[in-house]
Formats: sequence, structure tokens, C-alpha cells
Amino acid sequence: MPRYMLTVAYDGTNFHGWQKQAPIGADDALRTVQGVLEQAVQQVVREDVNVIGASRTDAGVHAEGQVAAFTSEQEIPVERLPAAINARLPADVQVRGARIVPEAFGPISDAVSKGYRYTFAHGCRIDHPRPLFDRDFVFWTAYDLDPLKMHDAAQHIVGEHDFTSFTRLHHGRESTVRTVFDCDVHAINDHRCELNISGGGFLYNMVRIISGTLVEVGRGEIEPDAVPGIIEARDRTKAGPTLPPEGLCLMWIKYPDEAIGIS
Amino acid sequence: MPRYMLTVAYDGTNFHGWQKQAPIGADDALRTVQGVLEQAVQQVVREDVNVIGASRTDAGVHAEGQVAAFTSEQEIPVERLPAAINARLPADVQVRGARIVPEAFGPISDAVSKGYRYTFAHGCRIDHPRPLFDRDFVFWTAYDLDPLKMHDAAQHIVGEHDFTSFTRLHHGRESTVRTVFDCDVHAINDHRCELNISGGGFLYNMVRIISGTLVEVGRGEIEPDAVPGIIEARDRTKAGPTLPPEGLCLMWIKYPDEAIGIS
Repeated sequence: MPRYMLTVAYDGTNFHGWQKQAPIGADDALRTVQGVLEQAVQQVVREDVNVIGASRTDAGVHAEGQVAAFTSEQEIPVERLPAAINARLPADVQVRGARIVPEAFGPISDAVSKGYRYTFAHGCRIDHPRPLFDRDFVFWTAYDLDPLKMHDAAQHIVGEHDFTSFTRLHHGRESTVRTVFDCDVHAINDHRCELNISGGGFLYNMVRIISGTLVEVGRGEIEPDAVPGIIEARDRTKAGPTLPPEGLCLMWIKYPDEAIGIS
Repeated sequence: MPRYMLTVAYDGTNFHGWQKQAPIGADDALRTVQGVLEQAVQQVVREDVNVIGASRTDAGVHAEGQVAAFTSEQEIPVERLPAAINARLPADVQVRGARIVPEAFGPISDAVSKGYRYTFAHGCRIDHPRPLFDRDFVFWTAYDLDPLKMHDAAQHIVGEHDFTSFTRLHHGRESTVRTVFDCDVHAINDHRCELNISGGGFLYNMVRIISGTLVEVGRGEIEPDAVPGIIEARDRTKAGPTLPPEGLCLMWIKYPDEAIGIS
């Protein structure tokens, strides 16, 4: 049976995150990206399928490049699959690409790296308004941020570290060691900057806590050189706050060629 | 009593237009920008005031530079007024500026020119997705549009004309002659273009019908040289369709220096 890989973009504002929530009754089902997408795919393939996503984004978090996969008895030309599914999707989700992948493809287990973006508006005071038209996609603060300082601090995040300081308290059964490949902050204009971060994997809330820590650096509350100490402390209370979901966007997920059938 | 002029921006998506709708009962009041703004202003000045807007934008139409005015017994420092009102406004409206103006200032009658923008996404087919994150601010079409042809056609719109072909049928009591000062179409990228139009005043739906006519030109259904004939026909059926409100934004309104107290 063919297995299909989809690249999916969505505006997370009106979703309760990616993951389907078990409905207690039909009326209680929460609107999730997985639920909406699975329904559209089932209408196309006329078959019950499970659509598995690579990343369980939280409520309000957006995606440019989520990856999802499903297996179906139907053989559908992949060049027609995005349009067929999109015709059955609401305006806030869209399939951007499709390909046939090996039967063993696992969108979660095969992922080798992921890229996220967090967007900041700063200095939003009397003379400069807070975000209006894109307010669901940007975090804003009245403080002025220094993107150069934030970028300096971000370099300490790069590498293999125990990121316990940058995740919610958890049971401690799984490793909290992750590798960050790139972590860059740059100014878009005088009142906007963005963080682009990529890594082999991320702990729960990790990008939002890194972003919150970088805001503390950007407004001068934490020096860039203090970041290694925050990492070493393995203590959530040493890092900055968890920033809200709307500033976060899952940009892309990479797989080895062999996992997705490129020879 | 001081008279105040406000510059107001809003995301029109969740408003039933600018103008307050007479509520049949409290529960039936429709959400309008004027209603929401008036309420916030009244909380600041602690007095019943009428906030009059320069332009009655339709439901779904946005503004970067709507102008509104009110008279109050309160003397409020104008540099503090935007923040005071914004603190009482929802996230989809914001006051961007305030000034004291002469008592006789009329935001509608004193306006000498207005600028609007209409934004088009085109060629939205299998290989290029429709707008997602800014879908409430852009009109989209599957057709490819030629912005150069649209710009050529737009030059015929400039000048003083009877714009009967570009408005809804009306009672014919008022003049349908208007003067367009500038009408430019330019490409933003391969799949986006925008119309910027300014004039002394606009008829009901005029910018949206001009935009619809330019789309017909851009996809090759109407030649640019056919536009003068469409104007001369004074016949709504000769022009293109009325495009949806979401692509439209009121950008600015200009007043003579003396009307707003600049000496």
C-alpha cells in the first residue's frame, strides 16, 4: 500500500493544536489540525486513515512546514493530491506538497532536524503601535530589545546541552539532552526581530522558553554571558518566561534521503 | 470645548463595518468600529460623545488611516490620548495619533483626498498556494494577472469622470462625478500585486469595482484601451465584478492645513 508524505501549513490561531483530542461526545470534539486534515484526507481516499504528524504543535502555534504521513489503499497521483485535499480543507490549513515515501517512513522517528521561527515586535509604546494586522503571528513587548545582544546570547544555546532549564518540569524518565544546530536572531526593522532556531529535536516549550530568555537579554535584564550558567543550572526558574504561542512557527522538518525514498 | 482628531487603524474582519448600527435591543447591537471606539473614548473622557468618522468603510474593509473626530469638555493632553484610548480598545482597533483641531473641523466635509489600497494574490493554483496567514487582507485568484497591463488600464481611471459604471445603482440624486488623482498598480512579487488609488472622493463600492475591472484586464479578458469606453458607457454591467472587502484598506485621508489648525 502506498504511503504518502504531506507538507502542511496552517494558521494555528483557531486550532486547539495539532493533535486530535479524544472526543467525549461528537459535540465535545475540539478543533485540531490533525482532526481537520484527517477528515479531508479520508474524503479524498474514501477510506479510514490515520494521519500522523511530525510535531505536536500547541494551540496557537503556526506551521509553514509541518510534515504528516498516511497510508492508503488508493493510488493517487501525488501532483494532484494537494489540490484534492485543499478543496476539502478550511481556509486556515493547506497542503503545500505531497510525495510517495517508503512504507516504513515515520514522520516523528525519521526526522533529523526541525526549524522554528519566533517573531518579536518591540518598543510598542505610545509612539509605536503594537502589531495589528498580524497580531496573531507576533509576540509584542513595550520594551526595546537589542537584537545584537540577543544574537550573542543565542550562540550559547547552540550545541549539545541538557536543556532542563528550558522545558516544563517533567517526570525525568526521558533524556533532556538535545542538540541545537543554529540559533540566530536578526532585526527585520527597528521594531521587529526574529529568532530562527534549528535542532535535532526540542523539548516541550523549549523554543518558547529560549525566546523568553532572549527577551530578557534583549531588554538588558540578563547578560548574554549568563546563558551558559542558566543552561548548567538545569533549573527552569533560572531561564526567562515561556512566551505565548502566537509568535512561534514550525518552519520545516528534514529527513534523510533514504527515509523519504530519494535514491 | 476642544475638538479632537484621531487617526485610527483597524482590522475590519470581525466588524460589521465602521458605522454604528442602531441596536433594536442591547443584544442585537452589531459590532462596529465606530461603536467600539466611541465606547472607549467615552470611558476616557467620562462623558457622552459622538465620534464621527471620515469614511464609512464596509464590513471586512480595513484601515491604516481612518480619521475620526469628537468634541469633549475634557482637556486631555493629546500626547497621552492614543495610549489612554488604546488601553480600552480591543486588539483589532488602535488609535495611531491624536491632535486638537478647530471646533468647526468636519472629518467628512473637510477631507480633500483619500488613499486606498487593494491587494491581489494571483496564480494561486496547485504549484502556488492561496494566501494563508494574511488571507483576511488579500483577494486571491487562480488566474495569472499581468500587473503592467493593469497599470496601463489604471491610467484611464485617473482624472475627473462620471463613475456610474463603477458604483452600485443608486437614486441618481447625487453627482456620480469624481476625480481620481493617482491610480497605480505594481507587482510586489511574482504572485502579488497591489493597487494604490487616491482621489477627492469615492462612490459606494467604487474602489472594489475598479479593482474587479483591473483583474479582468490583468487576466486578459479586457484590454487596457477598453477602459475609457467602460467609463463613457455609464453602465455598471460594462465594468468588472465588485471584489470582496478583505483586499481593501483605507490608507490615509488628507485635510487642508487650516481645517486641522496648522497655521
